[in-house]
Parts: sequence; C-alpha cells; structure tokens
Amino acid sequence: MTVSTMSIGTLYGVGVGPGDPELLTLKAFRILQNVDVVAYFAKAGHRSCALTIAQSHIPETTRTLAMEYPVTTELHRHSEEYKAQLDTFHDNASKTLADLMESGLSVAVISEGDPLFYGSFMHLHIRLAARFNTEIIPGITGMSGSWSLAQIPICQGDDVFKVVPGTLEEEQLVEQFQQNEAIVVMKIGRHLGNVRQALKRAGRLQQAIYVERATQDGQQLAFLKDKPTNQAPYFSLVLIPGFETAEYDALKGYVAGAPINEASNTSWQQDV
Amino acid sequence: MTVSTMSIGTLYGVGVGPGDPELLTLKAFRILQNVDVVAYFAKAGHRSCALTIAQSHIPETTRTLAMEYPVTTELHRHSEEYKAQLDTFHDNASKTLADLMESGLSVAVISEGDPLFYGSFMHLHIRLAARFNTEIIPGITGMSGSWSLAQIPICQGDDVFKVVPGTLEEEQLVEQFQQNEAIVVMKIGRHLGNVRQALKRAGRLQQAIYVERATQDGQQLAFLKDKPTNQAPYFSLVLIPGFETAEYDALKGYVAGAPINEASNTSWQQDV
Repeated sequence: MTVSTMSIGTLYGVGVGPGDPELLTLKAFRILQNVDVVAYFAKAGHRSCALTIAQSHIPETTRTLAMEYPVTTELHRHSEEYKAQLDTFHDNASKTLADLMESGLSVAVISEGDPLFYGSFMHLHIRLAARFNTEIIPGITGMSGSWSLAQIPICQGDDVFKVVPGTLEEEQLVEQFQQNEAIVVMKIGRHLGNVRQALKRAGRLQQAIYVERATQDGQQLAFLKDKPTNQAPYFSLVLIPGFETAEYDALKGYVAGAPINEASNTSWQQDV
Repeated sequence: MTVSTMSIGTLYGVGVGPGDPELLTLKAFRILQNVDVVAYFAKAGHRSCALTIAQSHIPETTRTLAMEYPVTTELHRHSEEYKAQLDTFHDNASKTLADLMESGLSVAVISEGDPLFYGSFMHLHIRLAARFNTEIIPGITGMSGSWSLAQIPICQGDDVFKVVPGTLEEEQLVEQFQQNEAIVVMKIGRHLGNVRQALKRAGRLQQAIYVERATQDGQQLAFLKDKPTNQAPYFSLVLIPGFETAEYDALKGYVAGAPINEASNTSWQQDV
C-alpha cells in the first residue's frame, strides 16, 4: 500500500456482471475504457465468458491477455497434483501481471459476476494486493441476475439467506434445505439430480425455481418441478424464496407465465 | 403480462447500488435518463438514501415522487397496528403508481442495493407486477460493496455462504456462527453488542471485519475486535470470510493497514 504510484501500474479486479453487457457498472465501464491491459482467465481453446460480456466495452486498441488454465477436468480438483499445477499457474500469471505493472502499465482482471464472490480473481489478489495499488470493482452476481429475471423477492425482513453449492453430498444438501431459509443453489451442472432429490426430501421442491443463463442469450426460467430432465449448464442455479405467503402464491402465476418461457424453443419448456 | 404496451407505462424496479453513484449499472443509468417518473421510499422529513445515490443521474426535468412511510419506529414492527398501517401505505402507493402508468407514464422505483434482496420494492412489486409490464434492474448489494472495499474474498470453492440478520436473538446468532461458513451479518444497527458477544462465544471474533458506509462518504473499515464501541449506523455490516488459510493471514495485514483507516478521523480508528 506504500508503493509509489508515479511509475507503477494499478491492479483492478473488475466484476463484469452476470451476462448482459449493460449490467456492468459505470465504474467498470470507465476503467475498461482507460486501462492499459485487460486480462482474463480462460480454458485452453475456449472463449472467456468474462471477455464475451465485456468485449463491446474494451477499445480495440487495448492490449488483452488470456491466462489459460493448464488443466480443467482431467485431474480431480481435490488431488494434490491438481492443486500443485494450479498453484504454479497462479504464481506464473501473477508474475506476468506484476511485470506489466512494474513497467508502468495498469491492468484490469475481468471476472464474471463479482470478483470476490466465489471468484478465481482471489488467487491473483492474494499474490499481488500487498505489493501493488489494488482496487476491486464489485459486479452484479449471477444469482442477482437470476432472481431479477424471475422477479422473485428472494428474501426479506429477518430471513436468513444462504448460498449452497450443488456439489455437496445429498445428505448435506437435505440438511441445508430443511432450514426455513431463503436459498440459492449454485454450481448445479451435473448435480441437478442430487439437488432435486434433496429438495424433495426436505419438502421444498414445490417452491424451487430453476434459472439458466439469466440475462444472457438463451436464458430460461421455470419451476424446477416442471423441468423434465436433470441436464443443466454451468450458468444455472435454483432459487428457493424465504417465504410462502399469499403474495408468493400470486407470483407463482407470474413465473409460470413469464414471457421467457413462451419465447423458448427448448424441449422441456413445453411442459412449463 | 398480456397488457398492451401502446398506452400503458412500464414499471422498472431499479437497484442503485451501495452508495457510490458510479456503481449503478449502465442499464440503470439508461433507464433513469429516459423514464417519466422516478419514485422512492422515504422516512417523513428525511432524505431518501436511494435518491441521494441516484440524483446526479436523473435529469432535472424528470418528475420525482416521494412515497413517505406513515410510521417508522413509533410502533413495534411486529405489531398488528404497524402491519395494518404499512399494508394501507403500500396499497395507496401502488394505486398512485398504477394511475401514473395507466395515464401512459413509465415509472422507475429506485432502491439502494438490489431491489429484490431484502428490499422494500417487493411490496409494490407484488401489487403491480401482474397488471403492468415490469422489469427489474439488479443492483450491487451493500455487502458486495463492503467486501470489495475490504478486499476480502468472502467465499470460494465449496463454501456455504450465509447472510444473517443481526436482529436475531444472541442464542440464534451463536448457532448460526458456529457453522464453518462464510457469513455476512446485516442489520447491525443497535445490535452490534449482541453480534460481538455471539461471535466471541462461537470462536469467530478474531476473523470478523466491520465495515461502515462502504463506497459512501465516511466509509470505515476495521477488524471488529479493534472497534472499541458498539455504536454502528444502519449502513454497517460484519464480514466473516469462509476460510482461514495462509492467504487469509496475509490479507489481515492488508485490512489493518488499509488506506481508509489512515485517512479516517473518527476516534475508534486510532485503535486499528
């Protein structure tokens, strides 16, 4: 925090929101317009989601830098080998960014959603924030984009609100769902079958709302009980509002009849 | 959802973020520039926080509408009398907005943070969304503004993340804090003593970070253990990250030495 700002570049952790390029903040937009380098994580051979979202706000002359993961799903993410490879990768990426900043360039690392909420940016931040001037620009989370699309007040008053990863074991999920709380289930992917079963066992399947790619092209919305398959992409989640009232009953009609479903052409939408 | 849009105005629920006017989204900005009426909740005789945040983005010629609460703290918020008065107030406010929209005017209701995350907008939404074209623009939450200011990665990987209202009884708070989860305590206000005691009993006081008015004028940041009093304004919260690692230990030095503290002139900052 005591480094000179005369010749050393600043590090910006910039949240680019859930998908719609209009859901960046004015501050994120200004920084992307003015920064020297825009860096992003990417799977080798894949386009970065964060870059797709932010692309239209980055001047064509701005230098971009892909930080490509050495491994993704070939190794188990809890294995020692995976952790070691990721550690080395984060060390090297941080070194690259540090060299750029020491040469006087400012660097924005763009993240989907919010950089410090389940974000990969933290691995760079913990390596660089003590040495460089660092600023975090918060972003709209995917869950906020989802309940805004569904138009569901997710929590109110004295509700406890909870985010549960769908990667937990079914027994743990049941335990989480049995509390009378507002819940968002993230990291659904191939775990939707488990999540659905746990919601049924906890008596909360009726309330659960499935949202896919909120605010992005191809966004989908339905009650989970009406979705016939357990296929779900990375950008999907399940919302369970914290209340069951006459008001919520009124909203159910709204979700079921939401225009997004009528416009859809995916097979399971026909059951909604 | 089937109303004609030819002559009837649209209802926008617009999140204006945690305080910094630059933390509105591009979409919120566009809507505020183009809408016919901007409406907001306010305590009688007080300036609206949402209006303070959004003011510079609202054209001077745009019509504004204050919806003033009939009661605030004179009646207990769980009393029948309070609920009845609030119900009537929300009915009347919705009627006023409905009349405007039926006359062809579009209306934006502005909310601090995110409209559907512990927001008062829901009381209007449940009364109007079935009758009028309605769109929700998500906003950056106060908690996201807070962990971005503190530069604390609040959760990662398979963490469960939880928002707990500080208004719960001390025993309930202890129970919540004892889980090994990432936690944000909201609605601190005059409950900070209870929250502190519960954190101590649950063995998590050492980790807890206190943030006040994040992204607003007068923002404050410190470890809760170093804050000598239990005085806290409405716009304050406590962050308890979901992990304790070597990385987090490194960040502790960052929080303790954050520029925001050095620049502060409030008394308790001297202890940080």
